[in-house]
Amino acid sequence: MEYGSYLKLDRLLTAQEPESLKQGREAHDEMLFIVIHQAYELWFKQILHELERVGRIFGGRLVDDAELSRAVHAAERVVKIAQLIVSQIDVLETMTPMDFLEFRDLLVPASGFQSVQFRLIETRLGLTRSDRLKFDGSDFDARLPDDARLRIAAAEAQPSLRAEIDQWLSRTPFVEMGGFDFRAAYDAAIDRMLKADIETIRRHPQLTEPEKRVQIASLETSSAMFDALLDDARFEAVRADGGWTMSRRALQAALFIFLYRDEPALQLPFRMLRALMDIDEQMALWRLRHALMVSRMIGRKVGTGGSSGYDYLRGSAERHRVYNDLFAIATFLIPRSDLPPLPQAVRASMRYRYEGM
Amino acid sequence: MEYGSYLKLDRLLTAQEPESLKQGREAHDEMLFIVIHQAYELWFKQILHELERVGRIFGGRLVDDAELSRAVHAAERVVKIAQLIVSQIDVLETMTPMDFLEFRDLLVPASGFQSVQFRLIETRLGLTRSDRLKFDGSDFDARLPDDARLRIAAAEAQPSLRAEIDQWLSRTPFVEMGGFDFRAAYDAAIDRMLKADIETIRRHPQLTEPEKRVQIASLETSSAMFDALLDDARFEAVRADGGWTMSRRALQAALFIFLYRDEPALQLPFRMLRALMDIDEQMALWRLRHALMVSRMIGRKVGTGGSSGYDYLRGSAERHRVYNDLFAIATFLIPRSDLPPLPQAVRASMRYRYEGM
Amino acid sequence: MEYGSYLKLDRLLTAQEPESLKQGREAHDEMLFIVIHQAYELWFKQILHELERVGRIFGGRLVDDAELSRAVHAAERVVKIAQLIVSQIDVLETMTPMDFLEFRDLLVPASGFQSVQFRLIETRLGLTRSDRLKFDGSDFDARLPDDARLRIAAAEAQPSLRAEIDQWLSRTPFVEMGGFDFRAAYDAAIDRMLKADIETIRRHPQLTEPEKRVQIASLETSSAMFDALLDDARFEAVRADGGWTMSRRALQAALFIFLYRDEPALQLPFRMLRALMDIDEQMALWRLRHALMVSRMIGRKVGTGGSSGYDYLRGSAERHRVYNDLFAIATFLIPRSDLPPLPQAVRASMRYRYEGM
Amino acid sequence: MEYGSYLKLDRLLTAQEPESLKQGREAHDEMLFIVIHQAYELWFKQILHELERVGRIFGGRLVDDAELSRAVHAAERVVKIAQLIVSQIDVLETMTPMDFLEFRDLLVPASGFQSVQFRLIETRLGLTRSDRLKFDGSDFDARLPDDARLRIAAAEAQPSLRAEIDQWLSRTPFVEMGGFDFRAAYDAAIDRMLKADIETIRRHPQLTEPEKRVQIASLETSSAMFDALLDDARFEAVRADGGWTMSRRALQAALFIFLYRDEPALQLPFRMLRALMDIDEQMALWRLRHALMVSRMIGRKVGTGGSSGYDYLRGSAERHRVYNDLFAIATFLIPRSDLPPLPQAVRASMRYRYEGM
Repeated sequence: MEYGSYLKLDRLLTAQEPESLKQGREAHDEMLFIVIHQAYELWFKQILHELERVGRIFGGRLVDDAELSRAVHAAERVVKIAQLIVSQIDVLETMTPMDFLEFRDLLVPASGFQSVQFRLIETRLGLTRSDRLKFDGSDFDARLPDDARLRIAAAEAQPSLRAEIDQWLSRTPFVEMGGFDFRAAYDAAIDRMLKADIETIRRHPQLTEPEKRVQIASLETSSAMFDALLDDARFEAVRADGGWTMSRRALQAALFIFLYRDEPALQLPFRMLRALMDIDEQMALWRLRHALMVSRMIGRKVGTGGSSGYDYLRGSAERHRVYNDLFAIATFLIPRSDLPPLPQAVRASMRYRYEGM
Repeated sequence: MEYGSYLKLDRLLTAQEPESLKQGREAHDEMLFIVIHQAYELWFKQILHELERVGRIFGGRLVDDAELSRAVHAAERVVKIAQLIVSQIDVLETMTPMDFLEFRDLLVPASGFQSVQFRLIETRLGLTRSDRLKFDGSDFDARLPDDARLRIAAAEAQPSLRAEIDQWLSRTPFVEMGGFDFRAAYDAAIDRMLKADIETIRRHPQLTEPEKRVQIASLETSSAMFDALLDDARFEAVRADGGWTMSRRALQAALFIFLYRDEPALQLPFRMLRALMDIDEQMALWRLRHALMVSRMIGRKVGTGGSSGYDYLRGSAERHRVYNDLFAIATFLIPRSDLPPLPQAVRASMRYRYEGM
Repeated sequence: MEYGSYLKLDRLLTAQEPESLKQGREAHDEMLFIVIHQAYELWFKQILHELERVGRIFGGRLVDDAELSRAVHAAERVVKIAQLIVSQIDVLETMTPMDFLEFRDLLVPASGFQSVQFRLIETRLGLTRSDRLKFDGSDFDARLPDDARLRIAAAEAQPSLRAEIDQWLSRTPFVEMGGFDFRAAYDAAIDRMLKADIETIRRHPQLTEPEKRVQIASLETSSAMFDALLDDARFEAVRADGGWTMSRRALQAALFIFLYRDEPALQLPFRMLRALMDIDEQMALWRLRHALMVSRMIGRKVGTGGSSGYDYLRGSAERHRVYNDLFAIATFLIPRSDLPPLPQAVRASMRYRYEGM
Repeated sequence: MEYGSYLKLDRLLTAQEPESLKQGREAHDEMLFIVIHQAYELWFKQILHELERVGRIFGGRLVDDAELSRAVHAAERVVKIAQLIVSQIDVLETMTPMDFLEFRDLLVPASGFQSVQFRLIETRLGLTRSDRLKFDGSDFDARLPDDARLRIAAAEAQPSLRAEIDQWLSRTPFVEMGGFDFRAAYDAAIDRMLKADIETIRRHPQLTEPEKRVQIASLETSSAMFDALLDDARFEAVRADGGWTMSRRALQAALFIFLYRDEPALQLPFRMLRALMDIDEQMALWRLRHALMVSRMIGRKVGTGGSSGYDYLRGSAERHRVYNDLFAIATFLIPRSDLPPLPQAVRASMRYRYEGM
């Protein structure tokens, strides 16, 4: 076993073939352009490798706690990788627009938007075809080679991570256990909180009447959204309006986990949800930094892929977030001190029997 | 001289007075909330200190080259500080929504939007009152104490950094020196490039006819914008439509600097422009990460300042960029290889007389 | 409640009094020097605030699991803060040696080594007076004001976090539960592993005989260290030689936690140990980057505190690590696949009774 | 032209062949191990690409200023890449020791120390065979395949970047121009400074007599080192003792550049020197973080390459720094305000003739 052969360096380090070099007028920075995109693709492969593990674990009927810990570990690694590829943009920004122009035309119509692995990551996380931003009016994969389109279609046919998480959350035992009391108690607590918020606005020294009306209206929407969590019919109505994408049971469980996350049995579930939010956030950041970099590089010109890259990236940064529901739940949290105490039975089932460590 | 007294630690380290503690029910995380905002304010003070130096240098009639190097150094330091305060958000994100709720209500109606120093930084950089996003319908400083509003008004009365940069650029000698030839030559080069781009789109295998029309239209806008750079009347028309904010002479000079930045005499001017773009980008990133953090913290609730913080921060991230013109110039760059050679006289004036180092 | 008064900005933003300004010849960069050190002190205060919480939780007889989750959260926040202050050095490095020289002499004999809070952090974590690097031959606090020395003495009189962690680990229930079998089984597994490692070296194609002897000797030391974990007398002998600093029972528990960390009940304990290692690592990094920065700033000159700062910082980076034992335990880990299965009773006690999530 | 074929993704994304998978018992984390090392190698290739450009520019007799700007740009990009690969360690640290143990034995005797590209980078920067830390008693390349050893030998036969920089600095015109006066004036300034420093120590309220003696002795060494810069014979003596590695003329020029870097003509030379120091610092950091990571991963065990990786990495972090001389020069800087004014002739030759920008 030798380092170079183990890493297949012969293949890896000969895979950089600058077009400008082939054409006899090497553009120095094309090497950076190739290397950084190859590094992205290596990391995309690793992200898919980790998401696959998470999928295997959540795909099954039950999630064993020891397995759950592996899934959380994999998801948290994806977060770290995502942070790394965001900071990789710092290196790309050392390429100035004019250095890029030296070889840009040779790339047409190739484009970063043709990265199949990136599309697979989005799909795996839960981004649906219908949620995707149109790409200059056509589908995001319209310009990909057939085999690429087939791989994406296959991935779309699988249940996404969001769907699996939804099912897993829906099975959370505690919410139901003597749960009705909890839900009623929490409903009351929320009502108190929203009423207090409305009071806060009414009494607000610096808000004008129109402002107050706007904000109170938005609070009443929140209130309606929360009530909907308790009633199937209303929930489906709100969901139909795009108010929610996940299921009622899953959202209730997520809320429960956020609220009682200090309970030992909820530690891992909480970290799983947090990791998903972190991934969502890092993907959004990556798109935004990418957008800024593009506007820096080609100004208002059209991208090599024939797209208005800047608009697409900025738009997708918001539009392609798949775990908005988890962010929205924060709306319904209350201070730990106002938290309804859990029924003893539920509480006990989330602790260990041994004497405290 | 002793460390603690030099740094006024007695004052500094006693300036954290959590409200929750005063009220007898300490919320552990309020300390973090106070400390991180105080760290922000310290860094804002430093940024203002550096911008003041830049202002002193560009404020005068002429900018001596040795002075210019100090201005660039100060601006590049602002970039580093901006990067640091962006990553500071990682620490704030260790505070979970429920930890925040423990003391949130005690802060009403205080809000980060009341940071005077941050407003002064925006104003100093060149953000005008009219360009600012309305804040729940009223002016951004409507809710600030009178002395704060006075400080901001005073800053608004001063020429901003953008205005000073505009004047400095307008004085760039080289563009004029036998400049007309250059401009004509460059005009031709740009026309060739835009025609080529249009061809690229026409021949594009994967674009539909409607797409092509859209993109060609946008290129023609670019073309018009560039032509406007050569003609005062047309320029003012485009500028009136918000196409440009800086002056024609300044933009021509900036373009010249981007194109010929390898010339020794243009090194510092180029780094100055790049630093301004970096600052613009980091400020945008700071607002975006801040927005994501807020949505994580309070979901769709209303902010302590009575504002819909998320929408405001997301909106301002785009709206409050003050150096868009410098990004837009990238639209008009051409490959170094197509660059019209400079008249010998101009070239000579940008070199040193000594034999090469 | 208003932002500025809540954050005591009047006090905070008037606490920068550059000496050079007082003396009528302002050195521009002294402001940065003051601001960055004040930012450090703010973060040191926050770190102490978090360590205090950890201490309160581990100080008691038993550690409730819900409380443990708070302790882990606090420790992980300290890691994030430590990472931030390491990257803060990037900003300080924008100050060049000559800019520093403009005001350096005004600071003598003040020195960063006089930061009481930093010393308190070290002490709180578990750094003992005897373990500390001498500071130019005298005690680290010899040059601090009396009140500072008193605060440090008081902190030294308290049990340190390392001592508390040691006690907490020593109480871990599982190791004992039917533990003897485990220990015997593990002993055998380790022997197999070390024998295999020795084989690896013997068969190693590229090692010379002398090299092999050196490495086999070091493995035998490891082996002895491990055996010592099973026998009190031998353990104390190794410990007396500085081989270990923590107690035998604590180290056994830590080993157990590393090995079986996928068990739900060991999740939080594992994260606690990992956070302590991360803090240790970040502190080392901070000292090393600081050392490099100093060598950059003053070369081989003597520091303002009269110290050879570079040597001290480099030395302490290694010498002041307090959780070396936890790093050393990695020596005794074996692949998950070779792990002796846990007795059913032990296993059951680390799971929940509810049906899997 | 299509994205995937342009980036050779078929080759790139099939170059990950985990040994554990081949052997039928996949270790999940081996993929991360392969991917991260491949990412390192891609970046090493890019660093070599940039260093090659720098070499081409400094290799020639004269360095045109426009060319110098490209060299600086390339060197500053290397700094950014180095920072990225340092932070890449954050991702590797998500692999725990036990996860590593799952496949570690399959790698023996492969080792990261066998990275040829990394050795080439070190050699190219100026690390000589004799300066290198012995690797378990034998030469650093003793265990590399023959072709690798040949590539390294070839690189060693070329003049290194440090050698080229030394020659380039030695040709700096200004130092000589009427330089003798400058040197005498500077000599006097330095003497004043060192005398003042000695006074500072003598008067130091908190230093004991022995401490003072030690420090005064070290200052006298500094003084001798500086005097040596003015006298060939003495310089060679100090150099023979390892006091300096670069040439006297080069060091004088570097000193001159640090001192008068605000002069336009010295901007680029100054940034070049600073970039070299930054690269040196980042390489040191990379080795140190790597060392900490290794101690975390295998404790005190022997590395897969048969080496005591931790000791080697820690040792090389200090030993393999190649631009120590540039750091040492900081010892001889004086405040801008004490700087001897330059002869008008010299000053003029470092300015432009045009009216200030």
